[in-house]
Amino acid sequence: MALIVQKYGGTSVGSPERIQAVARRVAKYRAQGHQVVVVVSAMSGETNRLIELAKKIQAQPDPRELDVMISTGEQVTIGLVTMALMELGLKAKSYTGAQVRILTDSAFTKARILSIDEQNIRTDLANGYAIVVAGFQGVDENGNITTLGRGGSDTTGVAMAAALHADECQIYTDVDGVYTTDPRVVPEARRLKSVTFEEMLELASLGSKVLQIRSVEFAGKYKVKLRVLSSFEEEGEGTLITFEEDEKMEQAIISGIAFNRDEAKITVRGVPDKPGIAYQILGPVSDANIDVDMIIQNVSIDGSTDFSFTVHRNEFNKAMSVLKNQVQQHIGAREVIGDDKTAKVSVVGVGMRSHVGIASKMFRTLAEEGINIQMISTSEIKISVVIDEKYLELAVRVLHKAFDLDQESL
Amino acid sequence: MALIVQKYGGTSVGSPERIQAVARRVAKYRAQGHQVVVVVSAMSGETNRLIELAKKIQAQPDPRELDVMISTGEQVTIGLVTMALMELGLKAKSYTGAQVRILTDSAFTKARILSIDEQNIRTDLANGYAIVVAGFQGVDENGNITTLGRGGSDTTGVAMAAALHADECQIYTDVDGVYTTDPRVVPEARRLKSVTFEEMLELASLGSKVLQIRSVEFAGKYKVKLRVLSSFEEEGEGTLITFEEDEKMEQAIISGIAFNRDEAKITVRGVPDKPGIAYQILGPVSDANIDVDMIIQNVSIDGSTDFSFTVHRNEFNKAMSVLKNQVQQHIGAREVIGDDKTAKVSVVGVGMRSHVGIASKMFRTLAEEGINIQMISTSEIKISVVIDEKYLELAVRVLHKAFDLDQESL
Repeated sequence: MALIVQKYGGTSVGSPERIQAVARRVAKYRAQGHQVVVVVSAMSGETNRLIELAKKIQAQPDPRELDVMISTGEQVTIGLVTMALMELGLKAKSYTGAQVRILTDSAFTKARILSIDEQNIRTDLANGYAIVVAGFQGVDENGNITTLGRGGSDTTGVAMAAALHADECQIYTDVDGVYTTDPRVVPEARRLKSVTFEEMLELASLGSKVLQIRSVEFAGKYKVKLRVLSSFEEEGEGTLITFEEDEKMEQAIISGIAFNRDEAKITVRGVPDKPGIAYQILGPVSDANIDVDMIIQNVSIDGSTDFSFTVHRNEFNKAMSVLKNQVQQHIGAREVIGDDKTAKVSVVGVGMRSHVGIASKMFRTLAEEGINIQMISTSEIKISVVIDEKYLELAVRVLHKAFDLDQESL
Repeated sequence: MALIVQKYGGTSVGSPERIQAVARRVAKYRAQGHQVVVVVSAMSGETNRLIELAKKIQAQPDPRELDVMISTGEQVTIGLVTMALMELGLKAKSYTGAQVRILTDSAFTKARILSIDEQNIRTDLANGYAIVVAGFQGVDENGNITTLGRGGSDTTGVAMAAALHADECQIYTDVDGVYTTDPRVVPEARRLKSVTFEEMLELASLGSKVLQIRSVEFAGKYKVKLRVLSSFEEEGEGTLITFEEDEKMEQAIISGIAFNRDEAKITVRGVPDKPGIAYQILGPVSDANIDVDMIIQNVSIDGSTDFSFTVHRNEFNKAMSVLKNQVQQHIGAREVIGDDKTAKVSVVGVGMRSHVGIASKMFRTLAEEGINIQMISTSEIKISVVIDEKYLELAVRVLHKAFDLDQESL
């Protein structure tokens, strides 16, 4: 008999039918003798609906009052899920964040959990109840309602699992795990049985946003066993997130191929190589609320260098305009050039730390297909290249094959 | 400087625009130096929407979990109203029922208030805050969320006023007070400056359902000064509800003319006059869930009597069928006759207790117009007659004039 925390996101509880499916899965685990704590989000669309409503009153809604409002989304869901469990004959009981007493700081709309009083829930579990807890919300020491920010229900799930010393925290989403790459691009893409935290961050940041990063950090800190599963499938083991390399069940060198289609690259050429230049270039970009992804600066030749970075394609024109109007003359750069028809492809894997030759294999594979590499950036567990957008699918496919990702590893 | 509790119903907070109007009124009172506590309902339609949602999961929703869900309606409103007050530059703060600690019993969906902890609100008021409290909801001693049943926000308003010893509890609705009769029938109908609790019950029961009865009883018990006003008008004094006759500002004999268009009368003729007959007639009607309004039984002649009562017109056929099939033969009655083209008109006023001649004036007025009286029933503060439906408007108009209700009283 295990104690399992199951977290369901907004899509997984988005309709009465989906809520009934959640109840059936909980009932299955209960029938197997497990204790179950369910953490739920607001029904999909509900949080946004409430925020839009608030904005009709205040363009910048007061954070405390916004939390009072948007915390109702999860409160509705816990009632519905608990009723659905009762309909299946289970003993069930709901808890708001305040009722659990999920104590947070007072940073409204982005509060952090300080402690969880799990005693009542433990008693209810011992008495045979399935427990349904509202994710995303808590209460500060003065009894004010707080919320944890976007995706905060994941954090609630992990924090409940940590507080209850649960055997596993299952995160149900609309994907059934973490894949070697996007199956829509490479049909042979395989679900990973396990993946390290760092690998997941790299893989998730590139399209398949599976888990909220903060919740994963939380899980790592408290050694919570975390598993990503699909709420749309009856069976399936999902993907286990591990926090140490030697826990990992499959020891592939490379875990997956991540990519991002919406990358636009910008280069400021002929930049005088002196202290403070990077800030003088990126400061105005940041002030314009433009997020920057890759940043590359090579050694200078004759006291001048080229400075490149990538932004989201939608912000390309805005970024170019900022650089041409506010930066170029100011720093004395020769010219600003850019290309919004680029894409980023990355090979990801903790295994590459101890394996030489990954980079050369990647570059050779792309070269053999005639794909020119425009920019290169590396981290300990990732090598990213920027290429012409039209080669993206081809690059992902050949790299997926070259690193044997379509093969089940030993 | 006074302490005023203002309660706004679902229609009064039914849209962002309506909420902004509420905020403007609160700001006006604050500008006059008054302390204001606002009690709000869910936005109109919201509670029903949540109940319908719950019924998609459980035909008979679990009461505890239903309360968890439907209490969110008011929680959304308090956030919005507080934001609207802030937009006008006021200091404002919201409280859920649990945050106030409106302690109730544990009768989910129909809980009763046991006590209110008003200390924090008193402190906030002293610090210049306008306070916005969620109506309709409370918390039991175990921290479970409870609701007070339909119209419970009125009760919250009165209870808050009682706990805070407020100078006045203002109930804002979609009518601007209690009228001498329906202005749609008699354009000269006048808003009453004050009305006793009993008169209001009689006048309200006939169309203008202004206040929840339980809240008015509560106000009477705790001597809360209660005023009904329109949330759709900027100005207006509304109608003050008084609890003792000598408090009443205008000492008219008759307060108003009430009427009910949907009355159908049924008579069981030739009923043997023996104990238990009334029950044998009305028992089956009640078992069929048919509400009965007036009941009249005159003295018997030769051991047999006629037994009459009125029901809502929509239930006329059902009631006739019950009587003909289950009652007539069983009790040995001669026949069952009925008429669903009737209406009820009542003159209402605490003044009639000490004035003779009200009934005869009423009957003479109707006779002069050739209106036949089919049934008569009286109470201490009301005389009701059943007449042919087609004379209803005429009867209301002539009675309104006969009792000088179009004249401002001294």
